[in-house]
Amino acid sequence: MAMHIVRFQSAAGPRWGVARDERVATLDGDWSTTGAFLTAGGPAAAASATDFDRALADLELLSPVTADGRVICQGVNYRSHRAESGLDPEGQTFNMLFTKASSCLTSGRRPIRKPSHVQLLDYEVELGLVIGAPVDEPRTFEAADLGDVVAGLTIFDDVSARDVQLPQMQFYKGKSYRTFGPCGPFLVLVDGAELARWPELRLTLDVDGERRQDALASDMVYGPAQTLTELSGLMDLRPGDLIATGTPGGCAMRAPSALVQKIGALLPEATKWRIFLKKQARSDRYLRAGQTVTARIATDDGQLDLGQQITPVVDA
Amino acid sequence: MAMHIVRFQSAAGPRWGVARDERVATLDGDWSTTGAFLTAGGPAAAASATDFDRALADLELLSPVTADGRVICQGVNYRSHRAESGLDPEGQTFNMLFTKASSCLTSGRRPIRKPSHVQLLDYEVELGLVIGAPVDEPRTFEAADLGDVVAGLTIFDDVSARDVQLPQMQFYKGKSYRTFGPCGPFLVLVDGAELARWPELRLTLDVDGERRQDALASDMVYGPAQTLTELSGLMDLRPGDLIATGTPGGCAMRAPSALVQKIGALLPEATKWRIFLKKQARSDRYLRAGQTVTARIATDDGQLDLGQQITPVVDA
Repeated sequence: MAMHIVRFQSAAGPRWGVARDERVATLDGDWSTTGAFLTAGGPAAAASATDFDRALADLELLSPVTADGRVICQGVNYRSHRAESGLDPEGQTFNMLFTKASSCLTSGRRPIRKPSHVQLLDYEVELGLVIGAPVDEPRTFEAADLGDVVAGLTIFDDVSARDVQLPQMQFYKGKSYRTFGPCGPFLVLVDGAELARWPELRLTLDVDGERRQDALASDMVYGPAQTLTELSGLMDLRPGDLIATGTPGGCAMRAPSALVQKIGALLPEATKWRIFLKKQARSDRYLRAGQTVTARIATDDGQLDLGQQITPVVDA
Repeated sequence: MAMHIVRFQSAAGPRWGVARDERVATLDGDWSTTGAFLTAGGPAAAASATDFDRALADLELLSPVTADGRVICQGVNYRSHRAESGLDPEGQTFNMLFTKASSCLTSGRRPIRKPSHVQLLDYEVELGLVIGAPVDEPRTFEAADLGDVVAGLTIFDDVSARDVQLPQMQFYKGKSYRTFGPCGPFLVLVDGAELARWPELRLTLDVDGERRQDALASDMVYGPAQTLTELSGLMDLRPGDLIATGTPGGCAMRAPSALVQKIGALLPEATKWRIFLKKQARSDRYLRAGQTVTARIATDDGQLDLGQQITPVVDA
């Protein structure tokens, strides 16, 4: 049975709790990181909690993934997002991997701060996999193995400054600003059967109540088992690391068509990007201070529910 | 006065030491990470060491930067490397930033393991800055401030699988494989006056005794103060993080000219990259199993000397 873990601010510093029916039981334990929580008794403490004495609504939630972890991301991993990014939806020949600085992590209930030089601020709701066991050698993962290393799921918004990311071809820089990674509200600890339902998870994102993204995780090109297999051949994973599995269509950005891109490639770089940025700036879909982003991930039957992010946009 | 810190394998696990005249004094202290070493008494212990009872040559050296730290890299940051990468040497308009998975870190005296699917294995000698104090808000760094956050310098080889990095436009994936980050042999703790001499550091790299790279750090486009200023506006830095400041010209890779790139942009992606890879594969400059890479960084007067990396290439 899924457990909804929260991390929240108390007078004595960050604490861990488990939420049920809008109530929270505080856990006795001083885990300084998500990795420590997952590997040193946190889940057992949550399973045995009985005293749900606090209202969830009263707590100042923190990111349930702490900043010592790595934020590893998949790019253009939904067919619908490939199409709007100017790529052939069926033409994916490799898993695009990049990272965000983990200092981007913030609560799923706190503001996204828009840097003053960023005009094209975009949202990307993503299913986050939280690693619970070390991976330090190549391994072929099957769907049934996911529970060996994935401890839980969370909602992650891969906030992106398109005007930094694209003209400079820099995913890291354009996506790493502080607060560009709302995470949570919950770290949802799942068992193997729940994890197997990941394709049924529906991701939605609204901006001021207007639905922008709405898709099932089954639209992913590279699923968790394939991605973990590839990552294990490349690098080590540690408890507390977060893998953000890509976003479906509906982002603010609309890339030019393949034909326009081919023509654009003939222009001097600066000219090409000036035209691109000018065209994008006419869009009213990019995030502005004063707006609120709401993101949800759950199965349609509500049995596996990762909760809801509510993140206002403010000027940094 | 610079201190040459080593981390080495002992029967009881990794230990820290300070090296002088090919001898090493073991430090009393059980610092599990480079960040802990730098912030919890490691430098003071090194400064007061007197018992240089071991021969450096007898030690099994480890990376002096531990894998909990982040490896943040600058791309095409030397004019000479921009030119060979098919870019205008003077046309840099932004600081290219990317990361490597920190599990790539390995000793500067251990082998680089070449994955079987990688044909275009390249080397990149780089000056590494090791962070010694946290940075958690934007700050403008001047050259004189570097010592506030840079605790030491090291040699870093940003090993790169060009056949993964370039066709997939994936710096992270192509550069993150385990052992793709030889680091050390030393973490050289420096004072402000020594740090101010960074432009005089000469970086050289040989493959089987043939000189491939030879340049002064002063050829960098974005120096440490500019880069730290930019990073501080983007993300947090922690003690033990490594910033690899880019490599000079002389890599195995030779990119097509700007004109050829414009023509290539008109080809289908798969065709363009097939032609590129075929042409590169004819080069005998890429690393092969059995070769040995030797890298040095020092001022020409020898007063600031980061030592020498010796890394054989083996098949994984």
